[in-house]
Amino acid sequence: MNEFMKLAKEEAIKGITNHDGGPFGAVIVKNGRVISKGHNEVLQKHNPVLHAEIVAIMQACEVLNTSDLTDCILYTSCEPCPMCLSAIIWANITNVYYACTKKDAASIGFRDDDIYEFIKGHNEMLNLQELNREDCLEVMQKYQNDGGKLY
Amino acid sequence: MNEFMKLAKEEAIKGITNHDGGPFGAVIVKNGRVISKGHNEVLQKHNPVLHAEIVAIMQACEVLNTSDLTDCILYTSCEPCPMCLSAIIWANITNVYYACTKKDAASIGFRDDDIYEFIKGHNEMLNLQELNREDCLEVMQKYQNDGGKLY
Repeated sequence: MNEFMKLAKEEAIKGITNHDGGPFGAVIVKNGRVISKGHNEVLQKHNPVLHAEIVAIMQACEVLNTSDLTDCILYTSCEPCPMCLSAIIWANITNVYYACTKKDAASIGFRDDDIYEFIKGHNEMLNLQELNREDCLEVMQKYQNDGGKLY
Repeated sequence: MNEFMKLAKEEAIKGITNHDGGPFGAVIVKNGRVISKGHNEVLQKHNPVLHAEIVAIMQACEVLNTSDLTDCILYTSCEPCPMCLSAIIWANITNVYYACTKKDAASIGFRDDDIYEFIKGHNEMLNLQELNREDCLEVMQKYQNDGGKLY
């Protein structure tokens, strides 16, 4: 077994042993060195955002003092949900290894697969409505005119 | 202009005035009462996850002491990226109003639209590879056997 995936699995085990949340662990590695480890803490912290990958990303950014994780590799015990996948892209990570699949997550009841299908336009999990676009557009235009960074 | 969207816009303005991050604000409302407000803090906190919607969700969960935001409505000054959209779903929010669109975000240089296309399978922003599935599957099965919650 890959040594970093083994650490991700150990994080997942730690998470369920502590009843912190779902059975998921993640590790971030840079130049062969472990930068951060995380597991799902949704239950323990009452925070739906704290998936293993998000916890690992936030910790890596703290350790490296940057929001840019270029050249980092993420190992996760399960295929990232669209939230984590997008967070990985926003963090500029480009290489991800996962063990279990989103189908495996679905088979034990998690909604990852449904969220993928929603984003592809195949179901209606959410009502999304446009409102007051013209009123808010000027803020975005001001940001662009001021040369704001694209994070 | 809708009163809650106005607050979301004000948050966006606050964020760019303080140089906290991109020009985005969000507000969460329950039973007509504002529960939380947030703006993008990616730059200020070196944290790629802290989009306006994520900040508002995390704060609402703290205020209400739950990861379940059923019956909350989210107002955001721009259409949520897939990270935020998924976080909204994980938080059980089902009604979202947005002002600017993902095309507007793309037009000032943000990658929201590319991430949507990636999740739909239309580009290759990221290398995703399966590894050691069999070794990790047992952790998920143990969680299911123990009746673990689906967050």
